[in-house]
This record gives sequence, structure tokens and C-alpha cells, in this order.
Amino acid sequence: MSKLLRGGRLASVRKDIANFTSSMKDDLVLSDAVININRAHVMMLMEQNIISHVTGVALLKALTSIFDKSLSSSSEDIHMAIEEAVLQETGEEIGGNLHIAKSRNDQIATAIRMQLRKHLLNSINNILKLQKSLLVTAENHINTIILEYTHLQPAQPVTFAHYLLSFIDNLERDLQRLLEAYKRVNFCPLGAGALATTSFKINRNYVAQLLGFDEVLENSIDAVGSRDFILETLSVFSILSINLSRLAEDLIVWSSMDFKVVELPDDFTSTSSIMPQKKNPEPLEIIRANASKVLGDFVASSSTLKGLPSTYNLDFQQITPNLWNSIGIVDVSLFILSELMPNLKLTNDVSDKALNSFVAATEIANFLTRKYEVPFRTAHKIVGALVKSLIANNLTFKDLTPEMIQNISKKITNRKIKVSVEQIYDCIDLHKIVNDHDAKGGPAPEEVKRALVERKKLLIQSQTKLSSLNQKLIKAQQTLESKTSSYLTSNLSSN
Amino acid sequence: MSKLLRGGRLASVRKDIANFTSSMKDDLVLSDAVININRAHVMMLMEQNIISHVTGVALLKALTSIFDKSLSSSSEDIHMAIEEAVLQETGEEIGGNLHIAKSRNDQIATAIRMQLRKHLLNSINNILKLQKSLLVTAENHINTIILEYTHLQPAQPVTFAHYLLSFIDNLERDLQRLLEAYKRVNFCPLGAGALATTSFKINRNYVAQLLGFDEVLENSIDAVGSRDFILETLSVFSILSINLSRLAEDLIVWSSMDFKVVELPDDFTSTSSIMPQKKNPEPLEIIRANASKVLGDFVASSSTLKGLPSTYNLDFQQITPNLWNSIGIVDVSLFILSELMPNLKLTNDVSDKALNSFVAATEIANFLTRKYEVPFRTAHKIVGALVKSLIANNLTFKDLTPEMIQNISKKITNRKIKVSVEQIYDCIDLHKIVNDHDAKGGPAPEEVKRALVERKKLLIQSQTKLSSLNQKLIKAQQTLESKTSSYLTSNLSSN
Amino acid sequence: MSKLLRGGRLASVRKDIANFTSSMKDDLVLSDAVININRAHVMMLMEQNIISHVTGVALLKALTSIFDKSLSSSSEDIHMAIEEAVLQETGEEIGGNLHIAKSRNDQIATAIRMQLRKHLLNSINNILKLQKSLLVTAENHINTIILEYTHLQPAQPVTFAHYLLSFIDNLERDLQRLLEAYKRVNFCPLGAGALATTSFKINRNYVAQLLGFDEVLENSIDAVGSRDFILETLSVFSILSINLSRLAEDLIVWSSMDFKVVELPDDFTSTSSIMPQKKNPEPLEIIRANASKVLGDFVASSSTLKGLPSTYNLDFQQITPNLWNSIGIVDVSLFILSELMPNLKLTNDVSDKALNSFVAATEIANFLTRKYEVPFRTAHKIVGALVKSLIANNLTFKDLTPEMIQNISKKITNRKIKVSVEQIYDCIDLHKIVNDHDAKGGPAPEEVKRALVERKKLLIQSQTKLSSLNQKLIKAQQTLESKTSSYLTSNLSSN
Amino acid sequence: MSKLLRGGRLASVRKDIANFTSSMKDDLVLSDAVININRAHVMMLMEQNIISHVTGVALLKALTSIFDKSLSSSSEDIHMAIEEAVLQETGEEIGGNLHIAKSRNDQIATAIRMQLRKHLLNSINNILKLQKSLLVTAENHINTIILEYTHLQPAQPVTFAHYLLSFIDNLERDLQRLLEAYKRVNFCPLGAGALATTSFKINRNYVAQLLGFDEVLENSIDAVGSRDFILETLSVFSILSINLSRLAEDLIVWSSMDFKVVELPDDFTSTSSIMPQKKNPEPLEIIRANASKVLGDFVASSSTLKGLPSTYNLDFQQITPNLWNSIGIVDVSLFILSELMPNLKLTNDVSDKALNSFVAATEIANFLTRKYEVPFRTAHKIVGALVKSLIANNLTFKDLTPEMIQNISKKITNRKIKVSVEQIYDCIDLHKIVNDHDAKGGPAPEEVKRALVERKKLLIQSQTKLSSLNQKLIKAQQTLESKTSSYLTSNLSSN
Repeated sequence: MSKLLRGGRLASVRKDIANFTSSMKDDLVLSDAVININRAHVMMLMEQNIISHVTGVALLKALTSIFDKSLSSSSEDIHMAIEEAVLQETGEEIGGNLHIAKSRNDQIATAIRMQLRKHLLNSINNILKLQKSLLVTAENHINTIILEYTHLQPAQPVTFAHYLLSFIDNLERDLQRLLEAYKRVNFCPLGAGALATTSFKINRNYVAQLLGFDEVLENSIDAVGSRDFILETLSVFSILSINLSRLAEDLIVWSSMDFKVVELPDDFTSTSSIMPQKKNPEPLEIIRANASKVLGDFVASSSTLKGLPSTYNLDFQQITPNLWNSIGIVDVSLFILSELMPNLKLTNDVSDKALNSFVAATEIANFLTRKYEVPFRTAHKIVGALVKSLIANNLTFKDLTPEMIQNISKKITNRKIKVSVEQIYDCIDLHKIVNDHDAKGGPAPEEVKRALVERKKLLIQSQTKLSSLNQKLIKAQQTLESKTSSYLTSNLSSN
Repeated sequence: MSKLLRGGRLASVRKDIANFTSSMKDDLVLSDAVININRAHVMMLMEQNIISHVTGVALLKALTSIFDKSLSSSSEDIHMAIEEAVLQETGEEIGGNLHIAKSRNDQIATAIRMQLRKHLLNSINNILKLQKSLLVTAENHINTIILEYTHLQPAQPVTFAHYLLSFIDNLERDLQRLLEAYKRVNFCPLGAGALATTSFKINRNYVAQLLGFDEVLENSIDAVGSRDFILETLSVFSILSINLSRLAEDLIVWSSMDFKVVELPDDFTSTSSIMPQKKNPEPLEIIRANASKVLGDFVASSSTLKGLPSTYNLDFQQITPNLWNSIGIVDVSLFILSELMPNLKLTNDVSDKALNSFVAATEIANFLTRKYEVPFRTAHKIVGALVKSLIANNLTFKDLTPEMIQNISKKITNRKIKVSVEQIYDCIDLHKIVNDHDAKGGPAPEEVKRALVERKKLLIQSQTKLSSLNQKLIKAQQTLESKTSSYLTSNLSSN
Repeated sequence: MSKLLRGGRLASVRKDIANFTSSMKDDLVLSDAVININRAHVMMLMEQNIISHVTGVALLKALTSIFDKSLSSSSEDIHMAIEEAVLQETGEEIGGNLHIAKSRNDQIATAIRMQLRKHLLNSINNILKLQKSLLVTAENHINTIILEYTHLQPAQPVTFAHYLLSFIDNLERDLQRLLEAYKRVNFCPLGAGALATTSFKINRNYVAQLLGFDEVLENSIDAVGSRDFILETLSVFSILSINLSRLAEDLIVWSSMDFKVVELPDDFTSTSSIMPQKKNPEPLEIIRANASKVLGDFVASSSTLKGLPSTYNLDFQQITPNLWNSIGIVDVSLFILSELMPNLKLTNDVSDKALNSFVAATEIANFLTRKYEVPFRTAHKIVGALVKSLIANNLTFKDLTPEMIQNISKKITNRKIKVSVEQIYDCIDLHKIVNDHDAKGGPAPEEVKRALVERKKLLIQSQTKLSSLNQKLIKAQQTLESKTSSYLTSNLSSN
Repeated sequence: MSKLLRGGRLASVRKDIANFTSSMKDDLVLSDAVININRAHVMMLMEQNIISHVTGVALLKALTSIFDKSLSSSSEDIHMAIEEAVLQETGEEIGGNLHIAKSRNDQIATAIRMQLRKHLLNSINNILKLQKSLLVTAENHINTIILEYTHLQPAQPVTFAHYLLSFIDNLERDLQRLLEAYKRVNFCPLGAGALATTSFKINRNYVAQLLGFDEVLENSIDAVGSRDFILETLSVFSILSINLSRLAEDLIVWSSMDFKVVELPDDFTSTSSIMPQKKNPEPLEIIRANASKVLGDFVASSSTLKGLPSTYNLDFQQITPNLWNSIGIVDVSLFILSELMPNLKLTNDVSDKALNSFVAATEIANFLTRKYEVPFRTAHKIVGALVKSLIANNLTFKDLTPEMIQNISKKITNRKIKVSVEQIYDCIDLHKIVNDHDAKGGPAPEEVKRALVERKKLLIQSQTKLSSLNQKLIKAQQTLESKTSSYLTSNLSSN
């Protein structure tokens, strides 16, 4: 209950209702950000001669001492908790000036953005770790052939490295989206006041710079009344988590007893309380489910904002926890997958399954087109009929003979096509098929090697970019600390 | 980490991954339910001679003693935590039999339903409280006239009691939906095992009865693999919370300085940190926002289940917390509104606003139709033109003269319509208008009184229904306790 | 553009903006309902002497003649289109009275409910058809053994009929929810007017009865301002479609080349444009995806209503198309599945897969507990270790010997357990396992037969219930028609 | 029904099921894109000597002639419809080669991206138009004072231009997000085949260039199996539409009879069918509701993709219509608002309302802090108490006297504060308050003018950027056309 703000306009509030509207519990993660905002703001007020040096230093001292204290959990929010703590330390004559020329509306928007910056950089780092984990795993599987599926039906042979590359590239777009979201988050709303800036002669650029922001978030109504940066962040995490859910789904299906494409390490499975034979892919199921949780957070936040009047409404307060919740969920999903990928065991030999599932069919059709100038659509029909007839006789491509091809192609096209046994073998040789699929982005080992080299370079570039973003924040923080020290020392010397 | 289940099929699990898949933190609310399930199950195993009396009693004793203990937070889930606690008390020779003929899959489904039953009855009670609060408020405002809006534009005068009745009736449907959901929740999955029941000769009906269920949830795949009861519950709460958000929106708009239809008590508002004149309707904004949170939980849960294979998948585990979260949110919204409604102050006199907003327009048109047999569509045009002309001259219906009507109706219909001054006064007399709207469900005080009497009866019926549902659960619990005591005593005497 | 309503208060509207706000395109499905509402309303106006017999009959005649006409697509909405058509036929002196004592607000709510009633009964019929299809299929598979999965890992053997029953029961709850939603839909808002009823002395009960409603939707603000019935309907369809998506997912996975549990008929699959061997389960993928569409419609509608002021807002107009869209989607999904189920081919022999996946493990543990009083948790460990050792040696339960059991159980429990070869065979005999799982709701053929008999009875009850609901609507419609004829004839004779 | 693909592997399909899985209706918008893809692909096949010049030219001729034909609506999809049309024209010997080295999987992904590019550029143009409309309106309202609200309670005076700037800036971020999404959309999947590229020696770069893409979408599994670009686009449109819904909500509230901040032109309102005085803001209500529809489309699409196996699944087909639907909705919302904004009438004088709502309170507190060094928190209390006392006596700041301030400040702080009457007048002078709020991003006319000049520059930059993106697509299309002509002519001459 904020005693600070009552007693003037409003009578005291009921405890149960104060609890209901209080955001204190959710605000605790913002505590450091809010203290730093107040420090930067006080420095600016001093520079602009809005408050005296003595008042400013006393406020800085009190603010700096709060870092180690536990704040009153019964406050209306983190802003009042910190102002109350400062007032307790300094008395109202000094502490009563902390809130000059700012409002909770601009302060909360600034604090969320500061906390979010850190989270975004951390999540970017987690993506880079997963990309690296996929890269390392891919390098061990450049020649490992797997059957890929469409519609969950065996389609064509590729290499496992080629499969892993698809997720490296997918994650690259998630990374880009996070970096672009970061750019829009790193704007400073402070100084926007309640919505109209202030009649005090403040310097918004200076505060923004002290807090490590790239720029001031200019228009003051926009600065306090916009939460599109939260929706954008949540949407990026939602899309990312859906990508991860699809990787999880692949691995759940592929590690099933029936598919047996991969085997999960014991570490990443659990057994049943009554079925001792079970080896359940539980962490992957959680990752799959978590994508829905992030989607739910996006919906909750979007539906909250939709149709709300512009500027600040308290509804905003209910959105922020969704943000932290979703980021936490995705971070741990990224971590678990990073740890899992290099420990997957691949099934050694897929040739039987390849035969049973006729994944060489496209290649035979391609061959007929290439060598005998059979129109592709005709070749497609011929091979379709071949597959049908083989299945009817419980045979596979291993049993395919030149005569069968000749007969069926004659029936369908009235051409005599004479294929040699060697040519058939060539067509159904998985390694040859994969090697021949060497178009840009294809599964051929040579092409995959080229791609991996490029992805490695990209990864290093991304790490450098991340590092420079991190450095900027660290430097700003260091400057804020050293300025605080200077002020506190200056005061000692002037005393 | 569940040591209990490993060491056989699987090697030990990593601590970080065990934490990731553990539901222990979320499961704690289910602890009592799981203990009771185990007690009922043990009694049945004894009755069916599946375990010996001595074993059974020892298990019951150990189970009963767990109520007071804190469970290991590092367990895989609540089921293993309790089994581990029993094993520690009894040793494996006894405790190793606790899990005969059941599985975590049926046990968790049973526990969620038991906990949900309690929550549903509690929420029903909260709805009844809000209905009562609305009723009591309505009885004080049977003659209080307000202007009602459509499209946020003033439409027609009604009584405030009539307005409140609309929410009583709205909530009545929410109540029905909750009762119907309860019916489907109160089925017992226990005995379904992992998905196929068991080869032990169990008695599912007996366990269901001991746990206060109405019936056995029969098909064992359905029993462990369905979560539609969670989706249904969440959808009902989502719809309910949207109804509440609309009530909150009305009050936010109506308590605005510009509308001034109602005044909120100081208790239910907050002021600004920099704008001392502000009186913000913060609890109502939270209630409005909370509807989005419940919608988010429904989406998260629905999207989790969509496309999942039937039977049990661990994705289920991520759904349950959404359920408790949403119920908690709606319960407190109901409570806050119950407390608020009787404390609203209504603006005394709406007659000026009524004149400025021409809400009597429909009544004048009706009058022209009724008295002068002007076709309604023609009357509508006449009055529309009247309003337009009055606005253009900065006048209101107070300034309306028989001549104006005559002139405009002549222009539009070529009829001479002679209306007296008294008739005009009658048409724009708000009390007369409201009294004349006495069709079933209308705002006329007489009709509202009739409706309130009926609603009171309905409320009492609902309270009786709720009470009988509560009683059934209490009785079952008492029976379970007394049976436990009997068993424990029988053992002492037989020793 | 509604010329009818302009010219009075408002200047003419722009064509592009009129198009933007017009609901005419979406309203066409409501055309019959709106005409019938007008007919019933006119009859009531005549009975109450609000309009003359001559006027009433002329209106009825005009209304009846509209059924065959195409309405102006440039109208603001269906209400204006029909009023305009009547006016064109009768002139304003007669037709101008059609809108006495009602509003578009109550009329649209009534029309949606009338159209929705029909849809709900139709969808209920579609559910019954699918239940019947599942029943018929189940009767052919009472002894067909399949392996059921949890976490997509083989769990235990059941019968296919048992599996199908789980969906019959699941659908039964969907059916109940639809019936309960129907109950709440079948209330009549007409007479609520814009929001305050009317000062004309109308008879709401009479109109409700003529239109086949169970009751009047009483409170007039509630009657025009509530759309919870749409949210409820959409939520029920969303839950239903999620159930169907899970059935679809099962069949997609089970018809994969790797699982080969079922084979889809050619009719229900498609091939690839380049991979001639493919047999893709396309209709099932659409059904799986459609559940998301319905969820999207629920979200769109919920988010639209959330935080809207009570009474009528035009936002409502955007909700109704979501309703029809989702119902259509679910209806066709139900139909496709009804057609598919009886045509599934089941893989004949699952015994090899059963051995490879050790699904008999639970039964062996149960056996050790039952026969040798090994505590279940100990038995679970023994069998877990057995499975691990067999896998390590590339063996299955077929190779299990009494000695292996003896050795491992000694290592784990220090007991000597002598099991005979026959007992092992018994434990891994799939038919015996299934037969022994004869608890209520279990997969044993005898239990399944009992359940199927009960479900058949239930199906007949449901069909009877549906039929009586249908009959009520048909009768009301017949009465309306015959009353119309009487009025039209009476007029002829009186002329 | 695709006869083309059946007859080989699969028996014929049922018509009802073929209709169910057909995407033909939704595909028609992609028809031009698919023809162009085929033309570019054929040119590449010729260049790479995969097909002969003669075959290639014949295919090009047939393809070019299809633009004017109506396609078979009974086809499985647009790909088969076009291939069938070509086959009809050329016979199988020629036309059967159209599908060499590509698949429907890469072709559909390419076609969607091509169509989406156009839509994105169009929507960007619509945003620019709305920004321009806001700019033009703002220039007319640089000195128009309005009261801004937080929590829907009057907060502080700003200028209307300052308010409009908040939406210009908000839209600027939407614009950036669309441009960034465009960047990720404009990658070419063609050549990825079904998922593994092809063993034909294709040139993916060449096709990408012919179709105006920036780059090849490299990894072939990613290329056919990713739809994150659709989710990203929908999320950007969802955020944008929520921004628009908040603008709509402001205008709905502000144009209400009670707020009367703005007046909507008659053109943009509708009246009631029974309440002739009504002037309802219907287009704005539709815009507000439409944000929910876009959110629903995002949810439907996200939930469809979540947990889907990687590579192509037919579920994808159900996502694309959501995309077009949402884009259409947002485009028209942007258009309506562009048309509306310059036509808003602002209420001339807000001074009475300003006094009644005490919006000068913050300024008086600021003044006490600035001039008398009253700590801000103390000043806040003093002014709060002043407001309370004035309200209690039915007074406003107009009635504020130096004595009142002196008395209350003495009571609260024990200071004597002597304020002059002139100083009070200064504090409550709305123009002075607004002028003094001249911090960066503030409402002061000078600051707003500066901002508007900058925004104009930005708008021109954006238009230039848009124009260059458009030009690139137009040029690519022209090149494709002229190459087609050359080929067709070359053929004539070679004939």
C-alpha cells in the first residue's frame, strides 16, 4: 500500500485491494534497473541544476545503498518501494525530490527495456550455442545417410548433416529477428513523464546515454503508451519456440521404437512407473509443449493491448510477467537441445528401410528421363506402377529387373526401354543418390561441407556482433558506477 | 530424480535434465489428493485380496503419516515423492506394493480431477457471491435512472437495477456451464493403469466411491489420455472472465471524469505518482486485463493438445498449471467485483445529459406512430430531422415545440401533426419512458422488481445445489478417514 | 448503403465506407431467419392490436414473397435489405410499420440463434454418425490386437475395438457439450429492442413460441448485448476438433511406413508430384490442421468481446462469420472420419513387434508380484534389468529363460525365483494378456463387447433426443407457415 | 482430382475427398506466380541443357497462353491445374517434362513468397499513406490543445499534433518490421525439390534471379519445410492491427457524446434503426474488431505449425489463406483511417473541462517545487489535498486562491508559501503549460514542429526505399517477359 501517494487526494486503500493491484512481486526483477534509472536521473537533475549538488549526492548515496537491502513487499510497486526506501534514508526534504520530472509511467517502460535488453542478449547467446552444437554434430555426420520424410512418409535419402543444417539456417532467421527486436527495444522512454514530458528543463539524451541506450524514444505519448516491443519480442520467441517444437517432434518420432532413426541417450529419457521396458523422450515432449505456452503468452498480451486507449493503462502491468515467463521457457529449451544434439546416436544402416520404402523411386524416374528422354510425367507413372506391382508381390527395388521396367514402360508408353542391371543398382545406391543431389543447398557431402564452412564463419560474425552489444551495456554500467563514485567522493571532499 | 525407477532399464539421469522434466513444484497442490488416492487404492487392494491385510495396514499407516511431512522437492513428481516417502517408512517389502495395479497415468488424472472439483465448487460459490452482491445493489437502485449506451453513444434510459440484472443473468449462464463442467470432471480414471487397466482383479467402482466420484471414467485409454475436461474448464472460465471484463470496462468508462455515471469508492482507485488529481480505476483495469490471461491459458492448453497422439504424453504435464493459474485469476476478479458493486455511487440526476443526448428520440417516434399512425420508418425520419435541426441551433428536446414537429413532419410526410406541449413533455419524461418499457425483461421498476424476486429464488436454489455437491465430497472424505482409522485400529487389536 | 436510415439525422455515406461496414455478404445465410422473425413479429403486432389487420396481412404477404427474391447486395445489412424489399412492395404507409417495436439489435441476435440452432442439430447428427461409424468398425475388431503407445513408445497390447471405444466416449462428451450449448442458444431475444424493450405493449412469449424457442431471453440488455453463446459454441467445437485432430494424428503416425499399424485406403491418400512411391495421408493432415483454425476463430471472437462495453457494439458483427466458418470446418472433418474409419485395414500380426518392443514387460512384473509375492517395485526393477540385458544381447522375450529371471532376480532381490517356461510363454502371450485385462473399461474382448452394447443403446437414445429437438423446430416452422396462409386467406375473403 | 498423378501408384480418389484436400479455390491468387515460376524454370532447364530448345520453347508458349485461360477448378491444386493445361496444349511428350527437377513442395513455397512480396510492398505503401495522412492532419493542429488521458482519466494537456505524432512513430516501427520481414520473404526456394534438391544439374541462382529474388533459400529441407516467414508476417500484421485498434478506440471514446473531444464526419458514422438521434462510429468499431481477427489468424497458423514434423506436411496448405485474409483486413483498416484522420473535427475549447478535471495539478506541484523548493513529493501531497478540498466545495482551479495554498501547505509542511494570483493563473494557463513542455518528444508547438519536419524527411526516405523495392520486382518481371518473347521469336525464326 503506497502511503506515499495517499493522504492527499485519496483516502486509504483496503489491504486486499492493494494486494490485488500491487505489482511488487513481479517487479522484483526490475529492482536493479529502477535503481540505476534513478541514479542516472538524479545525475541529470544535478547537471541541469534542477536539484542542488547536495541533494543529488544524498539521493545517489541512498540509492546506491539500496542495492543490498530487501525492499518492502507491501509496496504498490517497485517504484514506490525504492522511493520509500530513499525517503527513509534521507527524509522527505531530500528524498521528496527523487520523483521530480519523471513518472512511474516512463520509469517502468525504461526499466522493462533495460531488463529485456539483457535477456535478449542472453537468448541470442543461447541460440548461438545451439547453432554451434548443431554444427559440431553435423561435422560428425556429413556422410551419415538418413531417410527424410514428407507427410511422415519416407521421401528421399539425405545426410544427417544436411538435416541439421536446415535447423542451423532456421535458427539464423530467429537470431536475426531477435537482433532486430533488440534494436527497437534499446530506446529510452525516460523523461516522457506521465505522457507529456515535463516543464522542468531536463536532458533526455544524457539520461539515455548514461543507461546505455542507443537513442531516446522520442514522442512522449508513444514512449509511455506503447508495448509493441513486448508483442514483437513475444512473437519472435513464439516463432522460435515453434521451430524448436518441430525439432523436438522429429526426434520424438525418430526415436520411437518403430522409426528407430535415432537413439536418445538414457540421460534424456525416463521410464514408466509400471512399464519397465519404456524409454520415454520426456524432455523433448516438454520442449514441444512449451511452444504452446509461449503462444499463449503472446495471445494474452495481444488481447490485453487490443482496443486499449493509447497512453498508459494499468492493464500493461499484467503483460510484463508473460514476457519473462516466455523468455525463461525458450532459454531452457535451447539449452536442453544444445546438450542433446551431440549425444544422439544414429542408426547405422538404413538400406533395408530404404528398399522397403522405395525412396529411390524419384531417382529411377529421373534416370529414365535423363537417359531415355522419357517425359518426366511418364517416367513418374512408370515408376509408380513399378512400385505398386513390387508391393503387390512383396518385393522391393532390390528385386527390380530390367524386364520389369521394360514391360511396364511398354504398357504405359509403348516404348521399349532397355535398362541394365548395373544401371538399376546405380539408381538405388543411396550413396550415389545423395552424392548426385549436389545442387546448392542439397544433401551431397561436398555441398554440405561447403555450407558448414560458411555457417561457421557466420557463427563467428554473430558472436562478434553479440559481444559488441554486450560490451556497450557493460561500459555504460561501468560509467554509471564510476560517476556515482565520483559524486560520492566529491561530496566527502566538499564536506 | 527418481532413483526408484532407474537402475533397471535406464542409467542415471542428469540433474539439470531431471529438473527440466520434473513437475514436483507444480504438483505440490495435488499432494493431499494423491495420498487419498493411494489410501483408497490400498483399501481396494485389500478388499480384493491382492495384497495382504498386514501389508495394506502398513501402507495406510505410512500414507497417513505423510500428510504432515514435507516431501522431497527433488522427486520426479508427486507420485514418486509419495511412494519414496512410503518406502522410507516401510521398506521395499511392504512399500514396494503401493504401485500394484495402477500407474502414474491414471493417478495424475484422478488427482487433477479431485483438486479441480474443489476449485469448481469454490468458484461457483464466488459467482453466487457476486450475483448476491449485484442483487443487493439492484434492490437499492430500482428507481435509479441511468442512460444506457450502444456503440458508446447514449441510447435509451433504463434503471440501474435493470442494468445490474443483465449481469446477474449473464453470470447465471456461467454458473450453469461450471455445473455442467463439474459433472464431467467428477469421473474417476483410477484403475485405467498406464492405458490398459491391469491384469490384477481390481474393483474400480469401489475406489471411485471412496474418493467421492459420481462414476468411473470407463474406457482406460480415454481415462488416461483425455484432457478435454481441462479445456472445457478453461473455456468456461475464459468466457466468464470476458463477461467480467465487460462489466469492468463499463465501470472504467462510466467512472471517467467525462462520463461520470458512477463514482468509485476511494478504496478501489489509486492516484498518480505525479498527477495528484488522478483517481485511477486500477483494480478494474486488472480485471479487464485478466480476461486475456485466461484466454492465453486456454490457447496454450489447446495448442498443446492439438495433434498429440492419443493416450498419455508428457506434454500433458505443462497444461495443468495453466488450469490453476486461470482459476485463481478469475476467483479474485469475482471477489473484487463482489466487494465493489454495493459501494458504487450513482450520479443523481441524468436529466441534463438525457436532453443533450436526445435519448427520448425513440419515444417521440413511437408516440407519433402510436397516436398518429405515422408509419414507424416515417416517424424515425421525422425525429431524426428534428434532432439534426435542434443540434444545429444548439437546442435540446426541452426546446421542442409542437410547431417544430408540425413543420418537419409536413416537410417529410406532408401530414399535419398537431402535438400538444403536454404530450411532448410526456415523451421526454425519463421516468415515464422507463415505466412504459415494461415488457418482459424491460427496465420498468415493476418489471425489475418481479425479476429480482425470481432471481432471489434462483440464487437460493443454486446455493442449495452447491451445498449438496459440497456435502457429497465432505462425506466421502469422512468415510475415507474413518475407514483408515478402523484399519489402523484393527491392526493394533490383531497385533 | 441504407438510404432508409439516412436523410434524417445523417448526411449520405461514402460508398467505400458503407462497403466496409456492411455485413450484407455475411448476412445472406440469415435471410430466411430474418424473414421468419419479421413474420412472427407482425403476427404478434396484429394480435396485440399494435398494427391493423390490413397492415399486418400486407406485410405478411410482402415478407412471404421475398423468399424467392434476390436481395440488394448494397444494403447495410440483411435487416435493411428485407425492410427495403418490403417497402418497395407495399410503400412506406404499410411497410414503414415493419420495424415497430423492434430493433436490429434484437433481430440479429434472434436470427443468429435460429441459424445456429439448425447448425448445432446438424453437427450433433454428424457426431452421431461418426460414433456409429466407430461402433461398426469396433464390432469388426473386437479381437484385433494392436500395440498401444504412450509417449509414442510401445506400451501395452489392447484390442483395436478398445481403442475405438476411447473415441466413442470422448465424442460422447462433445455431444453433451453441444446439447447443453443448444439449450442456452434456444432463447429468444426478440422484443429486447435496441436494449430497453419498447413502450409498445408487445408479447415476447408469443413471438418466442412462434419461432420455436424454448424461452424468452429475458433481460433486454443481456438479450442484445451478450455473445457468450457464440464463444461457448466455438469453444465446444474447438475442443471437439482437437479430439478429432488427435485421432487424425494417431492414424497419420500409424499409417506411416515405419509404424504400419493401419493402412489407409487409396481413396484417402494422395501421391507426390515427383516421388511416385508416396502415399500421403492428406485428408488426415487437413483434419489435424483444422483444429487450429477453430482455435483461431475462438481467439478472434474472444479477443473481440473482451473489454467491450456491455450492450451492442458493431464489433459483434465481425464475430458471427467465425462461427459459421468453424462449424463448417468441423462438420466436414466429422464426415471424412466417418467415411474413413470402416475402411481402415489393420496389420494382421503384431507379435514380432510386440516382442521387439517388450510390451509384455508389465505383465511379467505383475506375474512375479502375483505368484511370488515380489513387491511390485522390485519386480519392476527385475524386469527392467531383464529388458536391458536382452537388448544388449539382441534378444527378445522369446529368448527369455527361467535361468535369466533367476539370475537377475537373485542379483536384485537375493531371492531365488523359479519360473517355468510355460509361465513365461503365458506372460508374453498377447491374447492372454489382453483377455486378462478385463477390468471395467479394459481391452478384454468380453469387456469390450459389454461396452459396445451399452454404447449402442446410448447412441439410440441420443438419436431420439436429436430427433425430438428437430421435430420441435419443424413444427414451429409449420405452424408459422400455416398461420401465414390463414392470414393471407383471411384477407382474400375479407376483401 | 489429379488424374495426372494417379493411375500409377494409387487407385482413383473419391470426389468428396478430393474436394476436401484440394486447395484449388485458395490457390487461384497464386496462378500468375506459378506460371512465371514455370517459365523461369523452363528457361533454366534449357540453359542447363536438361531439356531441348524445342521442348523448352513449346513449354514456354503453352505457359504463356495459360494466363488468359480459366483453369480447371477440379484440380488438386494450382500446380496440377497448370501442368494439366500445358499437357493439354502440348501433349505428354513435351508437357511431361515441365515438372523435371522440381516439386510442388518447392514450387508452392516460391509462389507464396512471390505473392507475399507484392502484398508486403502494397501494405508498406498503405502505412506510408496513413503516416502522411497523420502528418497532414498534425500540421493543422500544432496549436490545438486537447486533454490527454491515462487510465481513461484526464491527465495533462497536450497538442493534438503531439498526439498524432505518437501514431506516426508507432507506425514507423510497424513499417520497419514489415521491411525486415520482406527481406526474409524474398528468398527463392525453387530447386529444393521435394526436400532434397535434385540429381539434375540445375542452376538455382539463375531461377532466383529471373524471378526477382534477392537470394536462393539454400538448405533444401529448410526451403520446403519452413513457414516461419508466414508466422513472422502475421505477427507483424497482428501488432500493427493492435496499434490501429488503439487509435480506433481513442476515437470511439473521444467521439462519444460524453467525451466530445472529436467529432466524426457523418460519412464515417451510421445511425440506429430505431434511435434516430444516434451517430455510431461503426467503421472504427470494425477496425477495432479486426485486430482480433488477425490475432486469430496468427494463432491458427502457429498452432498448426507447432509440433509438426520438419519438411512438408499438408497442414501447411491450411495456413496460407490465413495470411491473405489478415493482410486484406489490415490494408482496408489502414485505408479507412487514412481517409478519416484529416476529416476529424476537434472540439474548440477544452478550458472548462481542463478546470473540472484539474489537469493543471502536476504543473502547480512542479511550480511549488521549482519556485519554493518544496520537495516534489510534498508538493504532490499539497496539490492532492487542494484538489480534494476544491471538489468537496464544488470548485475548480479557477477558484484557487493564494490563501488556500498557504493554508494547506502549512497544514502539510508547516511552511508558509505565498503564491501570487498571477502565478496561479500562469500555472493553469493551458497554452503556457503546453509551451513549457518542450523537452524532446514533448507537446510544445515548437518541439512538435521540429518533429514534424523530421518525420517528413523520414517519410520521403521510406517512399524512396519502397520505390526501389518495387522497381526491382518490376524489372525482373520485364526481363522474364522479354526473354520469353525472345525464345518464342527464336523458335519462329528457327522453324
